[in-house]
Amino acid sequence: MPPIVSIVSKKNSGKTTLLEKLIPELCRRGYRVGTVKHDHHGFDIDREGKDTWRHKQAGAATVVISSPKKIALVKDLEAEMDLDEIVSRFFSDMDLVITEGYKRGGKPQIEVFRRAAHESPLHTRQNPGTLVAVASDVDVDLGVPRLDVNDVRAIADFIAKRFLTR
Amino acid sequence: MPPIVSIVSKKNSGKTTLLEKLIPELCRRGYRVGTVKHDHHGFDIDREGKDTWRHKQAGAATVVISSPKKIALVKDLEAEMDLDEIVSRFFSDMDLVITEGYKRGGKPQIEVFRRAAHESPLHTRQNPGTLVAVASDVDVDLGVPRLDVNDVRAIADFIAKRFLTR
Repeated sequence: MPPIVSIVSKKNSGKTTLLEKLIPELCRRGYRVGTVKHDHHGFDIDREGKDTWRHKQAGAATVVISSPKKIALVKDLEAEMDLDEIVSRFFSDMDLVITEGYKRGGKPQIEVFRRAAHESPLHTRQNPGTLVAVASDVDVDLGVPRLDVNDVRAIADFIAKRFLTR
Repeated sequence: MPPIVSIVSKKNSGKTTLLEKLIPELCRRGYRVGTVKHDHHGFDIDREGKDTWRHKQAGAATVVISSPKKIALVKDLEAEMDLDEIVSRFFSDMDLVITEGYKRGGKPQIEVFRRAAHESPLHTRQNPGTLVAVASDVDVDLGVPRLDVNDVRAIADFIAKRFLTR
């Protein structure tokens, strides 16, 4: 099982924006990176009119499209799949899994906190949970290392040192 | 492992259109149906601008979005995944897997042959391969049962009798 780190925050704090810079930085260092996004409400994937979309609309409970270099799956579930199960089933060949969200996933968390987005962070110094660092644009003390949210190299360094042995 | 049946044809013979009618008919009978589409050239799934799309664009080799009732995966591969591996990894909870394509997959095949689309079918009586039936709008003799391509109940009956024990 690859190590898992969760990027968490209050809403609209720029998690995806951070991931868009962090993933290429980790890839440049030679790591195979996978991501899991947690979605509470359900989601749309696939494009209307595509064959796989038509299969799913017709009632197929599991749909796969397979090509020589890529595979995609859309699957209905009776119950939400546990993060550990997701990682063991789909990410065994990755070096690192980053989750966007999964505040209650029990994995080590890096909180993104931008002052422009919220008054206060999700975590508190009194109740840090599994927080291992905060990536922020202000000086915030949560009793864990503070990383500059705009310094993606420093964040990658922290992740590599903490979670990746090579 | 659920049984696998491949719907094959020459190009543009209406495989997806048949599946759009066949899947609901099998679902109505209580079967959990999964589908696999074979794509030779690669494919686009996911929608530009969505978070998962942004993760993938940033370089994530495996991307999952997970919600309480549905999960989706997009994964880069070093080599194309074998159909048996796909089915064992993703379809173990299905009653039946129908593939769209996989002419060379080695699974039992039903050929769709519409006279308006092509002069002659993919299979010949001399070289039927793994053909088990032909679904056509004309009287064609391939040495296997001929089903009416417009009679979706009869096609479902054939599949249920041949592949589904209950």
